[in-house]
Amino acid sequence: MSRIDGRTPDQLRPVTIQRGWSKHAEGSVLVSFGDTKVFCTASVSEGVPRWRKGSGEGWVTAEYSMLPRATNTRGDRESVRGKIGGRTHEISRLIGRSLRAVIDYKALGENTIVLDCDVLQADGGTRTAAITGAYVALADAITWAQGKKLIKHGRQPLTGTVSAVSVGIVDGTPLLDLCYEEDVRAETDMNVVCTGDGRFVEVQGTAEAQPFARAELDALLDLAVAGCGKLDAAQREALARTL
Amino acid sequence: MSRIDGRTPDQLRPVTIQRGWSKHAEGSVLVSFGDTKVFCTASVSEGVPRWRKGSGEGWVTAEYSMLPRATNTRGDRESVRGKIGGRTHEISRLIGRSLRAVIDYKALGENTIVLDCDVLQADGGTRTAAITGAYVALADAITWAQGKKLIKHGRQPLTGTVSAVSVGIVDGTPLLDLCYEEDVRAETDMNVVCTGDGRFVEVQGTAEAQPFARAELDALLDLAVAGCGKLDAAQREALARTL
Amino acid sequence: MSRIDGRTPDQLRPVTIQRGWSKHAEGSVLVSFGDTKVFCTASVSEGVPRWRKGSGEGWVTAEYSMLPRATNTRGDRESVRGKIGGRTHEISRLIGRSLRAVIDYKALGENTIVLDCDVLQADGGTRTAAITGAYVALADAITWAQGKKLIKHGRQPLTGTVSAVSVGIVDGTPLLDLCYEEDVRAETDMNVVCTGDGRFVEVQGTAEAQPFARAELDALLDLAVAGCGKLDAAQREALARTL
Amino acid sequence: MSRIDGRTPDQLRPVTIQRGWSKHAEGSVLVSFGDTKVFCTASVSEGVPRWRKGSGEGWVTAEYSMLPRATNTRGDRESVRGKIGGRTHEISRLIGRSLRAVIDYKALGENTIVLDCDVLQADGGTRTAAITGAYVALADAITWAQGKKLIKHGRQPLTGTVSAVSVGIVDGTPLLDLCYEEDVRAETDMNVVCTGDGRFVEVQGTAEAQPFARAELDALLDLAVAGCGKLDAAQREALARTL
Amino acid sequence: MSRIDGRTPDQLRPVTIQRGWSKHAEGSVLVSFGDTKVFCTASVSEGVPRWRKGSGEGWVTAEYSMLPRATNTRGDRESVRGKIGGRTHEISRLIGRSLRAVIDYKALGENTIVLDCDVLQADGGTRTAAITGAYVALADAITWAQGKKLIKHGRQPLTGTVSAVSVGIVDGTPLLDLCYEEDVRAETDMNVVCTGDGRFVEVQGTAEAQPFARAELDALLDLAVAGCGKLDAAQREALARTL
Amino acid sequence: MSRIDGRTPDQLRPVTIQRGWSKHAEGSVLVSFGDTKVFCTASVSEGVPRWRKGSGEGWVTAEYSMLPRATNTRGDRESVRGKIGGRTHEISRLIGRSLRAVIDYKALGENTIVLDCDVLQADGGTRTAAITGAYVALADAITWAQGKKLIKHGRQPLTGTVSAVSVGIVDGTPLLDLCYEEDVRAETDMNVVCTGDGRFVEVQGTAEAQPFARAELDALLDLAVAGCGKLDAAQREALARTL
Repeated sequence: MSRIDGRTPDQLRPVTIQRGWSKHAEGSVLVSFGDTKVFCTASVSEGVPRWRKGSGEGWVTAEYSMLPRATNTRGDRESVRGKIGGRTHEISRLIGRSLRAVIDYKALGENTIVLDCDVLQADGGTRTAAITGAYVALADAITWAQGKKLIKHGRQPLTGTVSAVSVGIVDGTPLLDLCYEEDVRAETDMNVVCTGDGRFVEVQGTAEAQPFARAELDALLDLAVAGCGKLDAAQREALARTL
Repeated sequence: MSRIDGRTPDQLRPVTIQRGWSKHAEGSVLVSFGDTKVFCTASVSEGVPRWRKGSGEGWVTAEYSMLPRATNTRGDRESVRGKIGGRTHEISRLIGRSLRAVIDYKALGENTIVLDCDVLQADGGTRTAAITGAYVALADAITWAQGKKLIKHGRQPLTGTVSAVSVGIVDGTPLLDLCYEEDVRAETDMNVVCTGDGRFVEVQGTAEAQPFARAELDALLDLAVAGCGKLDAAQREALARTL
Repeated sequence: MSRIDGRTPDQLRPVTIQRGWSKHAEGSVLVSFGDTKVFCTASVSEGVPRWRKGSGEGWVTAEYSMLPRATNTRGDRESVRGKIGGRTHEISRLIGRSLRAVIDYKALGENTIVLDCDVLQADGGTRTAAITGAYVALADAITWAQGKKLIKHGRQPLTGTVSAVSVGIVDGTPLLDLCYEEDVRAETDMNVVCTGDGRFVEVQGTAEAQPFARAELDALLDLAVAGCGKLDAAQREALARTL
Repeated sequence: MSRIDGRTPDQLRPVTIQRGWSKHAEGSVLVSFGDTKVFCTASVSEGVPRWRKGSGEGWVTAEYSMLPRATNTRGDRESVRGKIGGRTHEISRLIGRSLRAVIDYKALGENTIVLDCDVLQADGGTRTAAITGAYVALADAITWAQGKKLIKHGRQPLTGTVSAVSVGIVDGTPLLDLCYEEDVRAETDMNVVCTGDGRFVEVQGTAEAQPFARAELDALLDLAVAGCGKLDAAQREALARTL
Repeated sequence: MSRIDGRTPDQLRPVTIQRGWSKHAEGSVLVSFGDTKVFCTASVSEGVPRWRKGSGEGWVTAEYSMLPRATNTRGDRESVRGKIGGRTHEISRLIGRSLRAVIDYKALGENTIVLDCDVLQADGGTRTAAITGAYVALADAITWAQGKKLIKHGRQPLTGTVSAVSVGIVDGTPLLDLCYEEDVRAETDMNVVCTGDGRFVEVQGTAEAQPFARAELDALLDLAVAGCGKLDAAQREALARTL
Repeated sequence: MSRIDGRTPDQLRPVTIQRGWSKHAEGSVLVSFGDTKVFCTASVSEGVPRWRKGSGEGWVTAEYSMLPRATNTRGDRESVRGKIGGRTHEISRLIGRSLRAVIDYKALGENTIVLDCDVLQADGGTRTAAITGAYVALADAITWAQGKKLIKHGRQPLTGTVSAVSVGIVDGTPLLDLCYEEDVRAETDMNVVCTGDGRFVEVQGTAEAQPFARAELDALLDLAVAGCGKLDAAQREALARTL
């Protein structure tokens, strides 16, 4: 079976990771998974939220948002509606947890890094692209903070790398990195966040049309782990380039 | 290894499901998983949200909330703060999706059922207790709606049963149905929602302390599926009693 | 004339006051006036709001809320609407004032006690049941604080007891403790808060259908004072039991 | 005992009721009770809120607010804080109920009248001045609506007159119409709303410092009824003037 | 061409500036430009916002609001809607900037003055009347603060005077101080804020119906500067009176 | 005198206008004025807001926002704070008015076009870049709507072109198109919106440090008109390219 856009089931869309996309942010990336484009900035500030003061430990958090016309029909701005929707909350929290999974708070020291992931254009997989891009912005921000001596000499707050991909079952076939049209038709939809060594940070599987069996879950996990491996390589390659 | 409360790793806490806890609601349940107590009501109303009108299909949704002193220290009320937090949003959405997974919208007809899950006392596993109790309240509400002829004769909107349980790895050991103290110490935490036939509706695994390996994930899924089997039996038993 | 539920005009509904209903709160009560059930918790914390710091005096406040399906038809959650309604505000303030009327702030010292009164099921008289139950939760919380030495040895912050009841004129007859169906039909509706020695803390009378005369007001006050006397006895009896 | 401002215990402050204070509103009054000044406008619109449509009955409601510097120290604007406080809610509801007590909804027909009571300067008794002034603005608005044939020929929506006054016990003495300085020192504080024939619409008594006895309550009610009689005369006199 | 109200094109409406309109505020003015009436209070408080602490400099800010029935049809209260509209924000900011233009922050010392401008009745030109009146209230508040020694002896925080007027092109003719009916018909509408020496603090011109040419802009500025000169005289005259 | 970035006083920064930057929006532009980058999308929908229904006329409106890290230090998201700030409101309104100045509502028919202007990177002049870019997105959206027959054959809703630029006086010299560093130091700051034929749509001048004289105003207007002429050429050139 050939996919809508001609890919094989285990094929990612073209992935690009452009660093240095902002002159202000300490780390910044424009990441694209096919037509999904997310602008990720990492902002470093000295100090931590009140509940963490004096602990000697840092903090990393994230905020996700979609521009109103990132999607096919315009959505209301959450700032205009005066509240953040459940989906936005959920994804912001997912991104934050995913990045904190590879952070050594002690090594970070009492610094805070905020990752802003703003979706400029959406075509499925915005949260997984956001995590994948935000990791690179985070890595650049940490390098910046090391250069500025905000992080003590010789300390490395990053304990690993992290990337994410969506997988799903469409017409009975497990597929990697769903585009929007596939996502809508998926019977089961899963987002998987992995470290570079192939372990899991988050596994979120949802039966959209009907419950899924263990064998299907296993097939999806296999696809996702392989996909994250490729994303990990893309991240390393991007970070190897001179900024 | 013996657990904090003397349970074996694969043992649920005492589960009680009391139906008919409200004189007003069409379905109502006080569910407890040990010291976690959630009050679930199912409210049936004719009609559906605007975006669904004229489709001939019904809708099921859920709202989760904690009373301010359900936990060890008092939390602010979300009504007083003027906004719903991310965690509340996330859990409300999870409960709604979980129940919709066993609903045939066509059979339900243009009726809406809202599940309110209010945590009276929290000791870990509030979302899984909520799903497990809400299913029973939903079943009673559907029976009520059939009796009132809101649902057409001979139609059964329920396509299966659904229950949920938490699992996690504590000190290297996979454990079923974590209480709060275990949950805080868990390296990995997973919530699993299963249908009565052992398939998955939702799988949400999170690395709290460090990423988890595939073998750990597999062990947790095994525990969860077995636990949901026992919860399914408790639900059937509760529903078999005369209201 | 016999009432809807067979009571005499000066008869309370069955009143139950169950203490120790929460394992977390310093004081907790499930109070019922017939089918009206309110869950009251008292939460003690050291310190006082900013405007009272350094005064050596404590503070007591209350928050009232209804679960969405406490009533016959489901109401929207105030947290979801993003604001608290006028009725909720009004009742929260009434409960707070009523309890503060029997508090010696100096004896309480710089501690705060928050009373949360959540209506699980409503059938008229929710605010009066809340005040009556909250007093018992408050008394237990104060005993707890004395045991923890948060309150200085030998100091008694409670200067008296307080309870509340509704009265109203239905079809020309003054009635005590209206249930919902009576409340709806009442021409005049009054909530009265009394101390155990029969003095008034709050008197709130409202002409629903037509203005009321002084003689009617007098008859209602007589009924209410007698009713509060019975509630005072029920509170004492509850507090006399071993927790 | 002489009062702060030299009044006898049963004496009102100077009361002025200026009609026609706005060129836009259908009824408008600047009412003053001593240094308390409230600007009341009555706005008539055809139609009623949705829940009342098709009933053939009208609606009357009220909104109360204080300008930020109406008081001795500036308060935050509720519009800037983004929510209405409990006190504002409570008073708005009281004014609305008080005026509805003298309205025949059928005679009003499907029209809505909104009373806006904005406190320009506060010196105690703002809610009672607001009710007293709003009644006059309402009467003028009804006359306007009759002239515009919005109200059917020969129908009189007003079933009576209504005014309000505060009473309280200060240093053991019952006093009428408390100014701010007296209000702060009052042991008991009561707001009483009466119709022109001396019956009660609302009685709201609160023990500020200590519970009050029945005899005190009786003395306060006597004072209030007499005070409302004088306010009723002032309202009639104002309405008798040519606008 | 004669204007709606008989004025010549370069004629202001009757302007009145009544000082001392509030017994509480440190400065207060009821200003009217024809039927437009704005109540301006200046509130002085010691201290400055957090971001300015320790600078030795003061702060001046403003809030503008309309009473709901200031206009011909009643508008919703922004406090009830729970948010401030764009127009209100814009005008509050304009008033604040205009007054700060004549303030020497060093001379003011670490004191804050808040100008509240509440429109009691609107007939065009509410923002310009607000600025013109607020200046006078500000001047009185500064005199008060000097008397209270909040401002150091011999320091004068006011560096000049400021007033404002609207101008516009109606049916091709440039007009000064538009009333509402003229404002609605204006092709171009401009608000101009000037110092007493005829320089500009703010110039805000908007093409309502069609773009305007440089010559039109010049004619409008000429009118506005002359109008502000007359307002400056009215302010001086008001301030010369004994309070 | 040479400027910070080497420009002459009457020189624009490098301006780029990239069309077709979104696959979803009916018109989309990434506009840059030097380091200021604004992403503008135009969203067409059939129908108009309620207050305009049945008029046969269309509507054009705009929303402006800054990404949190568009600036040198991260700002809070307005969606997270739950309300839109005054500056955002003010600029959104300015953009909307500027574009409506060149729209023939009748020719547009009952269609709505929303311009979203999201600042990706800020370096002064974000509102003027937004207007300049939004015009091009609007023009593309109108061409799209003509192609889809949403706009009647032969009707041209655009009555002209519009662009905007900032000007200001820095160290006594009038400068065109201020960058952030110049903007901060400007004594006077003005934003000017012109049509392609050199007439004014908006003129907003603000004295930042001290009031400005008529001659200064005149010099700034001259600079701005010339600058808009160059921007008009850049817009035409961009629209002449094949999309």
